[in-house]
Amino acid sequence: MPLMDRPREECGIIGIYAPEEEVARMTYFGLFALQHRGQEAAGIAVSDGNTVHLHKDVGLVNQIFTPEILSGLSGRFAIGHTRYSTTGSPVARNAQPFLIETMYGPVALAHNGNLVNSVQLRQDLLQEGVGLSSSSDTEVMTMMMARAEGQTTGERLKSCMRSWKGAYSLILLTREGVYAARDPWGYRPLCIGLLPNGGYAAASETGALHTLGCSAIREINPGEIVTLSDKALVVHQALQPEKVQARCVFEFIYFARPDHVWDNRSVHSVRQKLGQELARESEIEADVIIPVPDSSVPAAIGYSLQSGIPYNDGFVKNRYVGRTFIEPTNSLRKRGVALKFNVINENVLGKRVIMIDDSIVRGNTTGPIIKLLRNAGAEQVHVCITCPPIKYSCYMGVDMGPQENLIAHHRSVEEICGYIGADSLHYLSLEGMMRAVGRQEGYCQGCFTGRYAIDVVDDSAKTGFEQAIS
Amino acid sequence: MPLMDRPREECGIIGIYAPEEEVARMTYFGLFALQHRGQEAAGIAVSDGNTVHLHKDVGLVNQIFTPEILSGLSGRFAIGHTRYSTTGSPVARNAQPFLIETMYGPVALAHNGNLVNSVQLRQDLLQEGVGLSSSSDTEVMTMMMARAEGQTTGERLKSCMRSWKGAYSLILLTREGVYAARDPWGYRPLCIGLLPNGGYAAASETGALHTLGCSAIREINPGEIVTLSDKALVVHQALQPEKVQARCVFEFIYFARPDHVWDNRSVHSVRQKLGQELARESEIEADVIIPVPDSSVPAAIGYSLQSGIPYNDGFVKNRYVGRTFIEPTNSLRKRGVALKFNVINENVLGKRVIMIDDSIVRGNTTGPIIKLLRNAGAEQVHVCITCPPIKYSCYMGVDMGPQENLIAHHRSVEEICGYIGADSLHYLSLEGMMRAVGRQEGYCQGCFTGRYAIDVVDDSAKTGFEQAIS
Amino acid sequence: MPLMDRPREECGIIGIYAPEEEVARMTYFGLFALQHRGQEAAGIAVSDGNTVHLHKDVGLVNQIFTPEILSGLSGRFAIGHTRYSTTGSPVARNAQPFLIETMYGPVALAHNGNLVNSVQLRQDLLQEGVGLSSSSDTEVMTMMMARAEGQTTGERLKSCMRSWKGAYSLILLTREGVYAARDPWGYRPLCIGLLPNGGYAAASETGALHTLGCSAIREINPGEIVTLSDKALVVHQALQPEKVQARCVFEFIYFARPDHVWDNRSVHSVRQKLGQELARESEIEADVIIPVPDSSVPAAIGYSLQSGIPYNDGFVKNRYVGRTFIEPTNSLRKRGVALKFNVINENVLGKRVIMIDDSIVRGNTTGPIIKLLRNAGAEQVHVCITCPPIKYSCYMGVDMGPQENLIAHHRSVEEICGYIGADSLHYLSLEGMMRAVGRQEGYCQGCFTGRYAIDVVDDSAKTGFEQAIS
Amino acid sequence: MPLMDRPREECGIIGIYAPEEEVARMTYFGLFALQHRGQEAAGIAVSDGNTVHLHKDVGLVNQIFTPEILSGLSGRFAIGHTRYSTTGSPVARNAQPFLIETMYGPVALAHNGNLVNSVQLRQDLLQEGVGLSSSSDTEVMTMMMARAEGQTTGERLKSCMRSWKGAYSLILLTREGVYAARDPWGYRPLCIGLLPNGGYAAASETGALHTLGCSAIREINPGEIVTLSDKALVVHQALQPEKVQARCVFEFIYFARPDHVWDNRSVHSVRQKLGQELARESEIEADVIIPVPDSSVPAAIGYSLQSGIPYNDGFVKNRYVGRTFIEPTNSLRKRGVALKFNVINENVLGKRVIMIDDSIVRGNTTGPIIKLLRNAGAEQVHVCITCPPIKYSCYMGVDMGPQENLIAHHRSVEEICGYIGADSLHYLSLEGMMRAVGRQEGYCQGCFTGRYAIDVVDDSAKTGFEQAIS
Repeated sequence: MPLMDRPREECGIIGIYAPEEEVARMTYFGLFALQHRGQEAAGIAVSDGNTVHLHKDVGLVNQIFTPEILSGLSGRFAIGHTRYSTTGSPVARNAQPFLIETMYGPVALAHNGNLVNSVQLRQDLLQEGVGLSSSSDTEVMTMMMARAEGQTTGERLKSCMRSWKGAYSLILLTREGVYAARDPWGYRPLCIGLLPNGGYAAASETGALHTLGCSAIREINPGEIVTLSDKALVVHQALQPEKVQARCVFEFIYFARPDHVWDNRSVHSVRQKLGQELARESEIEADVIIPVPDSSVPAAIGYSLQSGIPYNDGFVKNRYVGRTFIEPTNSLRKRGVALKFNVINENVLGKRVIMIDDSIVRGNTTGPIIKLLRNAGAEQVHVCITCPPIKYSCYMGVDMGPQENLIAHHRSVEEICGYIGADSLHYLSLEGMMRAVGRQEGYCQGCFTGRYAIDVVDDSAKTGFEQAIS
Repeated sequence: MPLMDRPREECGIIGIYAPEEEVARMTYFGLFALQHRGQEAAGIAVSDGNTVHLHKDVGLVNQIFTPEILSGLSGRFAIGHTRYSTTGSPVARNAQPFLIETMYGPVALAHNGNLVNSVQLRQDLLQEGVGLSSSSDTEVMTMMMARAEGQTTGERLKSCMRSWKGAYSLILLTREGVYAARDPWGYRPLCIGLLPNGGYAAASETGALHTLGCSAIREINPGEIVTLSDKALVVHQALQPEKVQARCVFEFIYFARPDHVWDNRSVHSVRQKLGQELARESEIEADVIIPVPDSSVPAAIGYSLQSGIPYNDGFVKNRYVGRTFIEPTNSLRKRGVALKFNVINENVLGKRVIMIDDSIVRGNTTGPIIKLLRNAGAEQVHVCITCPPIKYSCYMGVDMGPQENLIAHHRSVEEICGYIGADSLHYLSLEGMMRAVGRQEGYCQGCFTGRYAIDVVDDSAKTGFEQAIS
Repeated sequence: MPLMDRPREECGIIGIYAPEEEVARMTYFGLFALQHRGQEAAGIAVSDGNTVHLHKDVGLVNQIFTPEILSGLSGRFAIGHTRYSTTGSPVARNAQPFLIETMYGPVALAHNGNLVNSVQLRQDLLQEGVGLSSSSDTEVMTMMMARAEGQTTGERLKSCMRSWKGAYSLILLTREGVYAARDPWGYRPLCIGLLPNGGYAAASETGALHTLGCSAIREINPGEIVTLSDKALVVHQALQPEKVQARCVFEFIYFARPDHVWDNRSVHSVRQKLGQELARESEIEADVIIPVPDSSVPAAIGYSLQSGIPYNDGFVKNRYVGRTFIEPTNSLRKRGVALKFNVINENVLGKRVIMIDDSIVRGNTTGPIIKLLRNAGAEQVHVCITCPPIKYSCYMGVDMGPQENLIAHHRSVEEICGYIGADSLHYLSLEGMMRAVGRQEGYCQGCFTGRYAIDVVDDSAKTGFEQAIS
Repeated sequence: MPLMDRPREECGIIGIYAPEEEVARMTYFGLFALQHRGQEAAGIAVSDGNTVHLHKDVGLVNQIFTPEILSGLSGRFAIGHTRYSTTGSPVARNAQPFLIETMYGPVALAHNGNLVNSVQLRQDLLQEGVGLSSSSDTEVMTMMMARAEGQTTGERLKSCMRSWKGAYSLILLTREGVYAARDPWGYRPLCIGLLPNGGYAAASETGALHTLGCSAIREINPGEIVTLSDKALVVHQALQPEKVQARCVFEFIYFARPDHVWDNRSVHSVRQKLGQELARESEIEADVIIPVPDSSVPAAIGYSLQSGIPYNDGFVKNRYVGRTFIEPTNSLRKRGVALKFNVINENVLGKRVIMIDDSIVRGNTTGPIIKLLRNAGAEQVHVCITCPPIKYSCYMGVDMGPQENLIAHHRSVEEICGYIGADSLHYLSLEGMMRAVGRQEGYCQGCFTGRYAIDVVDDSAKTGFEQAIS
């Protein structure tokens, strides 16, 4: 049983050029600040101007890298990656960055996202006599760089970007440069900043750049390639941004750390506004607003500000959960053993509670959480979700599980409310969500509406591939 | 450099009798809910009625115990322990529980606290020709049980308790019973509850008992011995409670999880009241109240409620910090690499900020945190601490470091304020703190006043001992 | 299934005093040369004149000790130990040396052997109110040192030795000295030598002393205590040697490395003589003499010299066996998968083979080995064993398994010959074995005759103890 | 400092088809019998008819594979590999087999040897736009299979073999077959046999096939491809054997286990004959022949048979050496700490000793070994080497280190004799060596003569490559 019912994103990335030779350690600290974006594998590749050295493995960033390993990664250019695993896949072989030697010299590449035409691109490579050693679309992208046309790395990257359909924020390392680029739809975040004593850094989130002391931070534009080298920061609009932009709204709702600035909006403040919009739409009479920790705290504060109903903590979350492989047996579960949350009784006893949560995916953990509140004496439990019902799979790099497992795919809000045992259930409307974001367009709403900015090809071929090697 | 400037407690303990044979797994989940009380070593001892099996090691609970190890610990009686290490000491050998065979059968013992007469008790044992294999006072206590007089385990425990001076909440395992006891001063918490399908559990915090589904939870009284066996729950007031009770007030301020009920008061609600009292005493003009996460959140909410100044998040804490052995070099530190906290700029920019924190021990991390706020544009930074200045060492099991390192030992509040670079610094008064607790007596205030409920012997002998074996 | 059918000894020990500070590293190399005497756990304790530091763990010597660990063990006095585990027992807790603090200061102790009165000594300690944390007789011995009478360590050791019945070659460490002693029967080896640049070393085998460059090597006498300190090498005949000496003859037959000198006789040369005696007694017509590697090689050479029948290699032994936990399934075994030995076909094809082996304990591996020879085309296979039939358990520290499992306990030589499928089977006679050794007395022959130099008490109590703690 | 002065070979390989589903376990046991050919990394790939599963890692075979891992490798077709590392290279990434998906399905490949034109082949691939992720020529070979022309795997393999110059005994796995092939010069061994209950196995050494119970064992011919599938064993002479065959004579001298049959000659018997030839050529007056264990034992027996001088053991080798990373400091070395060998004094004291060794590469360990003998009282030490002086590097997969480090490259035999401090030094002549082998041609003598069967291209490019990625 999953410990949390959340969508799972695939990656955090970072790239650094710095004039002195501590880039591996800086990359490490950057990855550390991106750890929440992927906790299953991580890697760092560093160029000393001649050789590119790579270290990657399964585990948390602080488990993978020791001072000895970092000191073996010397150079002035570095990229790093941290990722979620897809259950059961051979994560070690799919860990990023991918590093290959090409006729143009060494190329290391890592990205966040998913190509919707990767099955076709993969078949093209195989038919051209190129063998592939993993099921990762990152290997496909890296191998395409080995055979792309163009005089410079930038030209070759641009040429490849023309072939790639889907979501990708990527970071690429050669002997003498780091390249950062975003797909023209702008699905995933990627931003850039100046390091305090010279040099530049690019990272998935502004928080990671702040951790490194960066200033002058801005987003890389959709379709843009930014080159970090010892000459200057070169910005090139390689592809025109697509007319219909498709930023992932889940960065606001759940993925990003609250100190991230996404689309020039603070994630923390958007989360508060999501709560405020939800308060406007739901109008529930209640005694207390409690968040499901941790991502729903700002929304709960916002709901409280808007509604005037007091905010308070209702749950204590066990900070160590998520790393245990020992689970309660069924008999212990029936006894009521509850690993993740405890209730702060006095704050819910005899009260009408509004519980704020950010999303319901499969719907298997909301019911037990509500039951905890009822057992603690909550008189009513109203559930407010800071986004609309998730009805469709994401093909752009967010793992929601199979579409048929999404509780909202075949059920109405009323049915879900009954299933989870709430007194009422309120999803934020699409319009309300976008009001909180501050724009009505420019965002992908595929998981809510089933309408994607890019035509999605069938993903069954991918399954076929995975049976070939493992 | 320490990542956080906090007092450190030594232990969480748990004991279980359950009629079916899943006590090791239940103990595991209980320890998991006590993990915040000690993250350096843990152990579980289980009796199957004949043999007592022990497994203990260095690490987090989920690193030490695998399903295989747990399944090798079968029985109906179990005790568990999780602990902080003292830097540099041989933690593996000092891990608890201690298990020995005695003329009365096997005895395993674990405790939370510190005996102030352990040097003398240790010398007594050595002079009687008993060898000791660790520097732990728990071994001294266990060995005393091997030679205590009395017909029953309970009598022998009572006899030992007469000799023990100091803080101890202990849990003891024999072939056919679990015993839980608290010192007559009541320094450390220990509570007991009924398991849902039969059996009993005792644990340091009520939260751990709730995790196991317990009901009918109450504190074990100071001086009381509670026996958990297959017959009944036997309660025996072995020693009269001392007239001057000495509960540790830091359980409210910092140690306990907010869902713990200590001295019949909810830790969460006392923390809110600490904030309220602080607001009453300090009267600062400001625009926003922000907590230093996580333990100061309830106090900040309370401060906000009392003062009317809005509460908001000001920091994002990296959840993965505390487990890295790689630190920023000085040059990176000067560049501003900040591992633990990032600021949510919009919430502090141009604002007069009140930052709520629970304590200042050595004072070396408060300054850098304030600087983060100033760098993010805070106009003023006022620091409010939810307890009085910590001026004296604790001899009852809380590691504050050497007394001369306590920043308040030789400095006035004004000097500290200057040292940390705050606009103003406010400690809660002793009276204010006790008002929040709801009682003016019954608590140890030694670290604030230097007056202890028990005469403290010189601790230099302990250092001498540590040089004998390691 | 065991990979080899051999008796198993319990230990190798070493002790060093050296004027400079590299004793831990020297002890490491000494243990490395004693690794064949025990491969399951090892430990080193070092005194810097003030504190005794201990490191011990499960595994091979080179797995347990890293350069970092060794550099943490500074001092001028050290003892070390390597041991066999008893299957299923908690080896980590039983690893040696044992280290305790006593009223006389720190004491660390390790030994090779087994006390036949350890159950009684253990009960005595328990009755005196001393708790014990393991099932090891070494802990009993160490704890007795904590309460022994006498003004000096030497006097207390002498006092303890009067109580100890059985086999023990021991090494003991205090703040300022290393003590080496042998039981008055002389069961197990222990020798002493001068280190080249000053200092002394004591070790189970002369080979370990040679590895350290020692000269002036001699055996420690039965009942003798030798003190290694910075003053001088002090030799004291603490107990009179027993009239009936009882050296273990299996040191010659199997345990010791061939470069060891035991009872002033070279193990290698005695093994050659065992082969010569066997040749005199057996008089078999054959074409080739082959050893079962490795311990039987010198005996096979001796048999060849005596008989005139050519010696040659018949088996290739897989050097990596013994460290795999993956075994052939029954179906693979039936297919003939043979992990340990391969036959050099040309040396046995069509030949009458005499196969020399050192002992048969349970008899379950000899048959398969003979079958390998027959499958390779051997015309006849005659088995010659360099000792008499092993009919009785050893109570002095050699693990033969339960007596009823000894194949010679209930079967005649003819029956064993039939069971293993040999053309003939010849055990060396007791007299022949002693002729090879060069003395007719002074050796224990208990495992052949059932007559022991010390009355053996029933060992059932030991089993009872093991059920108390684990 | 190296523990032994030996040439180092790069690999052992194995391939199995078996009708039941235990091929992974069988492959494991086969690798176990090839462990001496490479102790740094190992891997197994298995096909279940649909997917090829791979597990490879750094370490010994028994460290890499657990029962759980083996049970995850189900199928009827398997290949395995064990390898030596080149110092400093990223062994994990260079471990074999290499597994890729191609347009023809999955292909896994492992080999023993070295292509002399791999730099060119690598450049060709890079220029064709194929990226490479390691410095291994095995990846080059595998990637060439992904783009080779031909209707069948066999045809494609044949096509590749036409391009490959150098030494390769390879094993290749597809969904439905295992392919074994040798280069047309026949450098490295590879043989094939029938498994007892159906199926086939191919392996580097006959000993590994015997371990699996194989019968009907024969060598695969140079230039031959053998297909192991569920239909039949298909043998195809893909390339004509080269006129000048170039078997590696070091398989006899040092590499192979003595139970291997190489070129239809028993390795053990050729080693005896090498000793006999050496005795004929050297004619030294001496009292005893001693081998440097273990590989020189048969040659020493042969020398003794021929010369009539008695054979005996002179050294005891520490079986556990080679796995320690802790070495004697210089001061300990000067004290005479000798990790690897001890001398059996009685066998050399006052004697004229002939010490038989198989080769001298850099010459840095022979001197210290001779010194051990002299310290033990040897009157004379004559050194006899069972091959000619090694003067030139090997480009066919044997790591001799840089040519300038070979002691015989710039020095005469007399100079070497003086350097190592022997009374005399005798190398076997080229003719004598070939007489022992039984053939005067068909073997590579490049390391002795500098004349190679294939033109060797400069290997500097390889160094250049290694700087690109690591």
